Amino acid sequence: MPSPRDASPEFQKLLDQTALDVENTMKRLLPETDLPEAPLYEAMRYGTLGGGKRLRPFMLIQCAKLFGVDEMRARRVGAALEFLHCYSLIHDDLPAMDNSDMRRGKASTHVEFDEATAILAGDALLTFAFEIVSQEETHADPRVRIELVQMLAQAAGGHGMVGGQMLDLIGEGEEFDFGTISRMQRMKTGRLISFACEAGAVLGKASEVHRRALRNYANDLGLAFQVTDDVLDVESDASVLGKPANQDEAAGKATFVSTMGKEQAKQRAEMLVDQAIRHLKVFDNRADNLIELANYVLARRA
Amino acid sequence: MPSPRDASPEFQKLLDQTALDVENTMKRLLPETDLPEAPLYEAMRYGTLGGGKRLRPFMLIQCAKLFGVDEMRARRVGAALEFLHCYSLIHDDLPAMDNSDMRRGKASTHVEFDEATAILAGDALLTFAFEIVSQEETHADPRVRIELVQMLAQAAGGHGMVGGQMLDLIGEGEEFDFGTISRMQRMKTGRLISFACEAGAVLGKASEVHRRALRNYANDLGLAFQVTDDVLDVESDASVLGKPANQDEAAGKATFVSTMGKEQAKQRAEMLVDQAIRHLKVFDNRADNLIELANYVLARRA
Repeated sequence: MPSPRDASPEFQKLLDQTALDVENTMKRLLPETDLPEAPLYEAMRYGTLGGGKRLRPFMLIQCAKLFGVDEMRARRVGAALEFLHCYSLIHDDLPAMDNSDMRRGKASTHVEFDEATAILAGDALLTFAFEIVSQEETHADPRVRIELVQMLAQAAGGHGMVGGQMLDLIGEGEEFDFGTISRMQRMKTGRLISFACEAGAVLGKASEVHRRALRNYANDLGLAFQVTDDVLDVESDASVLGKPANQDEAAGKATFVSTMGKEQAKQRAEMLVDQAIRHLKVFDNRADNLIELANYVLARRA
Repeated sequence: MPSPRDASPEFQKLLDQTALDVENTMKRLLPETDLPEAPLYEAMRYGTLGGGKRLRPFMLIQCAKLFGVDEMRARRVGAALEFLHCYSLIHDDLPAMDNSDMRRGKASTHVEFDEATAILAGDALLTFAFEIVSQEETHADPRVRIELVQMLAQAAGGHGMVGGQMLDLIGEGEEFDFGTISRMQRMKTGRLISFACEAGAVLGKASEVHRRALRNYANDLGLAFQVTDDVLDVESDASVLGKPANQDEAAGKATFVSTMGKEQAKQRAEMLVDQAIRHLKVFDNRADNLIELANYVLARRA
C-alpha cells in the first residue's frame, strides 16, 4: 500500500525528465576531448555523468520556475551546482577521506582512474562550477551572476560544505550533541540545498518575502534530507544505495541516528518536512512540485 | 660582481614591502577562529601565510597601478590569487601527486596536519579565492568583478592550471617535445601569471591596447619564469629553494632542461625576458617596476 508521502507517477516522471535534461546540459558543458590532458576530462565526466537523482538542480529549476525564469538558464546553474556537488563526492571518497570504493553503483573515481586524477578532476569541477555561473549565458545581468558566484562560494567553502566535511572528519570517534550534528549537516549538505532554492529566486529577481520563504523551506528540507540519509544508511543495503551501507557506524561517525535513535530520527524528519511545506503557503498552490519534492525526500528508499 | 640583471636595492625593498602588505591582507581575510572546525582554518593559514615571494600579487598590483587602481583593491585580488596559487601547491604536494614533504622551508601541509585536512584546506582556499573576488569591496562595478571571476576560473581550471598539472603527471616517464612542454607550462603556471597582469588591467578598465601589451608581457615572462624554475631545480639545493632540489629528474619529468639542455634553456629564458620587456614600450617609462621584475625573474636564485 503506498504511503500518502509516496510520489505520484506524474511527479516521478517530472523528476526523471528533469534529471535527463540536466544530464544533457552537463554533457553539453563538459564534452569529450582528444587533447593530451583527456584523462582529466574523462574523470570529470565519469564522476558527474550517468547517475544521481539531480535533486539539487530539480529544486533550483522548480524555484526559478516560480518567478518565470527561462529554464535553460536555471538548468545551467543547476548543472554548475551538480558539478560542484559531484566534486565533493569525488574528494569525499578518496582513501584519505571516507575511503569509499563505490559510488552510484559503480567504482569511485579514484578507483576507476587513480588518486591524483581524482583529486585534479575534483579541483577542475569546482573551478568549472564558478566558470559556468560567471558566463553571460547564465543571466544577462552581471549583478545576478556575481550574486550567484558569491552565494555559491559561501555555501561551498570553509563556512559551508567544506567546513562541514571537516567537522564530519573531526566527529569520527567524538561524541557530538544534537546541536553540533545539526550545525555540521547544515554546513555539509544544507548550504548547497539552500543555494539551490535561493539561486532560483535570485535568477528571477524575486521579492525578499519569496526569497525568505524558499530559504526557510530549504533549511528545513535540507535537514530532513540529512536525517533520512542517516536512517537510510542503517536501514538500506548497498544494492539499493549504490554505495556501501552502514558506513557511518563503521567510521564511528556521529549521526542523527546515533544521537537520537532511529525512530526519533524518523519522526524528526517528518516534522521537518511538514514545516518545510508550511513555508510554501506564500506561493498559494503554485509550489506543488516543491511540496511533492519534500514528501519525496521523506519517502525515498535510496 | 652584480650582473646587470640583478635587482636594485630599491626594487628589492619594493618587493619585500609588497609581500608584507599582501601577507597582511591575507591574514585579515583569513583570521584565526575558535569554531569547532578550526583545524581547517589552521591548515589554510599554514599553507598560505608566512612565506612565498608573492610575485603574482606583485605583478597584479604593479599592473593595476599603471591605471590608477586603488591599491587596496588590487591587494584583495592579489590575495585571492595567492590563496588560489597556494591551494595548488598544497594539493600538488600530496602523496598521490608529487609526494613532497617540504615547501617554503617547512613541512608540507599534509605532513604538518594530515592528508584529509590538506585536501579540504585546498578545496576551501580555491573556493575562498572566488568569494573574495566576488565581493563588493573588490570593485564597485559588478561587471568588473564577474569578468575577474570568469578569467580566474578559466586560468585555474581544466583548460588552465589544473589541466597543466594533469599534463605534468602524464609527462612523468613520457618524452614531451618542446611544444608540448611549452603548452603544459603555459597552462600550469603561465595562465595564472597572465591572470595577474590582465586582472590589473581589468580593475583599471584599461584600453585593449594596454591590456594586450600586459597579456603579451605575461605570456613571455610566465614562460621565462618556468624555464628558470627548471634550471634552478638542477642548479640549486634544497636549503636555498626551500623544497627538495632535482625533483623533476627524480620523477622522470619532462622539463625545458631535459629537452634542450641547461645552457640553451638559460639562453631561452634570457630571450623571453627581453621580449617580455619590449611589450612594455607602450607604457613609456611608467612600467619600470615590471621591467625590473622581469630581470628579477631571470636573476633569482630560488
